[in-house]
Amino acid sequence: MASYNEFSSESNYPKEFSLISDRMLNTNPSFIREILKVTDKPEMISFAGGLPNPISFPKEELKDSMNRIVEQYGDKVFQYSTTEGYRPLREWIAKRYQDRYRLSVDADDIIITTGSQQGLDLMGKVLLNKGDKICLEKPGYLGAIQAFSLYEPEFMAISLLEDGIDLEELEEVLELYEVKLLYVVPNFQNPTGLTYSRQKREELCALLERFNTVLIEDDPYSDLSFEEEELPYIGAGKLANSVLFGSISKIITPGLRLGWICTKNKEILEQAAVAKQASDLHSNIFSQYLIYDYIMNNDLRKHIDEICKLYKEQSEVMLNAIKKYFPKEVKVTRPKGGMFMWAELPKGMLSAELFDMALQENVAFVPGDPFYTKEEKVNTLRLNYTNSDATMIEEGIKRLGKVMRIYLGEKE
Amino acid sequence: MASYNEFSSESNYPKEFSLISDRMLNTNPSFIREILKVTDKPEMISFAGGLPNPISFPKEELKDSMNRIVEQYGDKVFQYSTTEGYRPLREWIAKRYQDRYRLSVDADDIIITTGSQQGLDLMGKVLLNKGDKICLEKPGYLGAIQAFSLYEPEFMAISLLEDGIDLEELEEVLELYEVKLLYVVPNFQNPTGLTYSRQKREELCALLERFNTVLIEDDPYSDLSFEEEELPYIGAGKLANSVLFGSISKIITPGLRLGWICTKNKEILEQAAVAKQASDLHSNIFSQYLIYDYIMNNDLRKHIDEICKLYKEQSEVMLNAIKKYFPKEVKVTRPKGGMFMWAELPKGMLSAELFDMALQENVAFVPGDPFYTKEEKVNTLRLNYTNSDATMIEEGIKRLGKVMRIYLGEKE
Repeated sequence: MASYNEFSSESNYPKEFSLISDRMLNTNPSFIREILKVTDKPEMISFAGGLPNPISFPKEELKDSMNRIVEQYGDKVFQYSTTEGYRPLREWIAKRYQDRYRLSVDADDIIITTGSQQGLDLMGKVLLNKGDKICLEKPGYLGAIQAFSLYEPEFMAISLLEDGIDLEELEEVLELYEVKLLYVVPNFQNPTGLTYSRQKREELCALLERFNTVLIEDDPYSDLSFEEEELPYIGAGKLANSVLFGSISKIITPGLRLGWICTKNKEILEQAAVAKQASDLHSNIFSQYLIYDYIMNNDLRKHIDEICKLYKEQSEVMLNAIKKYFPKEVKVTRPKGGMFMWAELPKGMLSAELFDMALQENVAFVPGDPFYTKEEKVNTLRLNYTNSDATMIEEGIKRLGKVMRIYLGEKE
Repeated sequence: MASYNEFSSESNYPKEFSLISDRMLNTNPSFIREILKVTDKPEMISFAGGLPNPISFPKEELKDSMNRIVEQYGDKVFQYSTTEGYRPLREWIAKRYQDRYRLSVDADDIIITTGSQQGLDLMGKVLLNKGDKICLEKPGYLGAIQAFSLYEPEFMAISLLEDGIDLEELEEVLELYEVKLLYVVPNFQNPTGLTYSRQKREELCALLERFNTVLIEDDPYSDLSFEEEELPYIGAGKLANSVLFGSISKIITPGLRLGWICTKNKEILEQAAVAKQASDLHSNIFSQYLIYDYIMNNDLRKHIDEICKLYKEQSEVMLNAIKKYFPKEVKVTRPKGGMFMWAELPKGMLSAELFDMALQENVAFVPGDPFYTKEEKVNTLRLNYTNSDATMIEEGIKRLGKVMRIYLGEKE
């Protein structure tokens, strides 16, 4: 038998033959993968990842549920299942939307996805032709940029202001072009931590009523609120072409990869089911039974409150440390929930340069670059506060402040 | 708040605006979904699905493993994880290929996928531009047809003979066109149950050495062999552009959605990881720990032997019943493993017509139609024998034989 070493997968092709598809050749999503590799050292204090704190995983309760569902349902939790997902779980999700947001949705409006990342891939499949124009926030969620990129759209990033997306900029684009979809993260946005104001939500909804553009509201973070106030969704329950994403990743566990798509638009939902069947047949059914059993037998509200309490504390520790250690010229958002804050260096500074210096001091963050759809050198960066304890946060911000002072000094 | 009922998702758009992408509009994969819906009644004896027998799910052992991994690894089994998958599981898969097939692969050549269905989607993403030509067996696995369809290739189906794909036909196509990939199921093929002969494997490998075409060998069934003989893979370990798919779905559980891609082609594998990250970040990490723990603490070989013994018995019950009840004009394949056999009605008969009559008698199968890439009326059909017990098989084949006699009589 021939050995693999006899072949070189590169020299083998004539120049004109490309093994790899255009969509992959035109994508360059390795940046964040590289970052997460270098920040993985044990001595590193990392604000780079987007990991929930392990206190959000109810391990013992999940273990009880595992044993219970195998006893109770036996083979069913291990067999092939339906593409749309486990119906009782879909009913619970619908009921929660009814109760919290007065949305008139039911189980038939919901498909369980393999994390809400899959929702992005499915919407790409269902909605996007090559060259279609899509709008998202600038800066925007990098996972969405990656997922949509594979469907080769034309990205039109719209500035994200303190109170939500820039409506003037958006309106101009919507008037000029036929925009297929608008993707937003209205609550505690990734990467900025910003939240759309009530007024901005209403105005955005009114604007979108004039267009066919599909609004995707990706909402993995709304449960992680530090305040009482609960804001309505922008388009869910109001716009015909409106899709809502949800997830258990931030409130129970991300490792089981369960999220969902919710929409009253039957055309989109039916096509999403067809696309999902082609993509992975159905989501892990054991995990769906497991999460449903956990929810039925535990106080999810209380569990979420504990997560929020911790994250609020940690965000305050980080903000206080920033006040103490960061140069005054560095601006930072003040999140009302979620997992991230967003810092802006003085104009002309490059967070990628700062990143290299920070690594030397064993502290890490994500430079803003991958959150923009066009390659540009940026002075922004994302800080995560959920996965480091108070002592680490204090020490990490201290190190980062020191690096910033040196970098800013050098630049002056 | 406006009610959803005020909107009609159809009448809302100007005619020229299509919400849904071309790839979805050009796909018609609803056939099999419709079939599985009507065959779901309790009084139905269904040979339609492709479900493993529940004896293949080692429930108690998996339950032990669940408890063990939560104890042992705690938070890790619930946290976000790496796109490529849990390394010990990838090492075990590599080791198994080394031991069984003398393939010189290691963990770095393997990515864990969300079922091998996702492998198909990822290969579509990584390899296919719109209009690329791809070859597969005629009839071929419908899940592959569905998955690849979404990347809008041109399908060139190549006749599947008793001993494997028709090499003359294939060679002609490879000479005429630049074919991006060839997809085959070499062992106990879905839908026919046929297996490639040793000679056919060698000749196919020699043929492919002359072309850049990527060979995908999808192998979920090789473990389900009724005989001792183990045939080598066609291209794995020999061809530079060779990709192998594997799965735990048929030997442990399909509900956890775990499969894998194995290839020594670093370009393809790296791009597959990028595509997977965009598609669902990573496969369910709890399930990966679970399956690895199960494998480490149990006798998988013995478990697989039990499955094979049952499937062999059930296939014999079905073959004997067919001999007794089917009209002599109906030809049926005799599988040496796997889950399916394939029947051919006399020329001019339509299995879709037979299907409607069979439903009246409460017996179901899959008409051959969805296993062909071009819409054509066919006289072939697929029978599954793994998910009905001997009594049901006997009774179901009896009913089907009766329907066939009536149908053939009417047609004469």
